[in-house]
Amino acid sequence: MNMCMVRDGERVVVIDRRKPDWPGITFPGGHVEPGESITASVIREIKEETGLTIASPRLCGITHWCEKDCRYIVFLYSTEDFSGELCSSDEGEVRWELLEELPNLPLTSGMEHYLRVYSEPALSELFYRPAGKCWIPELL
Amino acid sequence: MNMCMVRDGERVVVIDRRKPDWPGITFPGGHVEPGESITASVIREIKEETGLTIASPRLCGITHWCEKDCRYIVFLYSTEDFSGELCSSDEGEVRWELLEELPNLPLTSGMEHYLRVYSEPALSELFYRPAGKCWIPELL
Repeated sequence: MNMCMVRDGERVVVIDRRKPDWPGITFPGGHVEPGESITASVIREIKEETGLTIASPRLCGITHWCEKDCRYIVFLYSTEDFSGELCSSDEGEVRWELLEELPNLPLTSGMEHYLRVYSEPALSELFYRPAGKCWIPELL
Repeated sequence: MNMCMVRDGERVVVIDRRKPDWPGITFPGGHVEPGESITASVIREIKEETGLTIASPRLCGITHWCEKDCRYIVFLYSTEDFSGELCSSDEGEVRWELLEELPNLPLTSGMEHYLRVYSEPALSELFYRPAGKCWIPELL
């Protein structure tokens, strides 16, 4: 999967997801298709979810967890290179928000950890370690 | 899988792999074990292959390709934070080389592309796209 922070100075694009499996405010993104490069998947998903055409997304870090012999990975990207106008999709309303305001909004589960990977240069990984029925987030 | 460039100024640690599947000079690294964080796997592999104890490895990019419904990923890390003395293992001889000299050495297949991801800030991905019986490297 992928996620991308589209940034314009102090503002970032957020999506307010309404689906019951991961509701809340987060950065746009989605799935990587078979045979697709990660960069191409980021550009495609941002177009589909926000209407924006982005270029030169940069890898900032990863989030991952293991379940039933599979490792699920979210590649975290950012870019300041975009064109077009915001346009919401069925995935949720998109809008600009101040990056510093995000912690005060109803974020998706775990998004507060994702934000640390985005904002702290020393971090490049969020690993969810299983602990019984829970997951313990490790920032690395 | 993982790979890590351990750097000391203009010098980097290389490993001269002798195994027939991927012979040549490359950066040390290896597999990520089930349930292991990527960062922990990098620290473990560098210890096993070079004898060095590293800290704070940073994600620089990824290399990946798809085969039989699986996506194989190499996470590319770097660090300048290390201690200890170089010690070779069964995986191959390890030694310091000048980074700028690497293109003149007998590198592992594709290592010239990996080096571009390491050295060019605009790049964060090397994707091998299948084309018949060949793979076409895409730098993104």
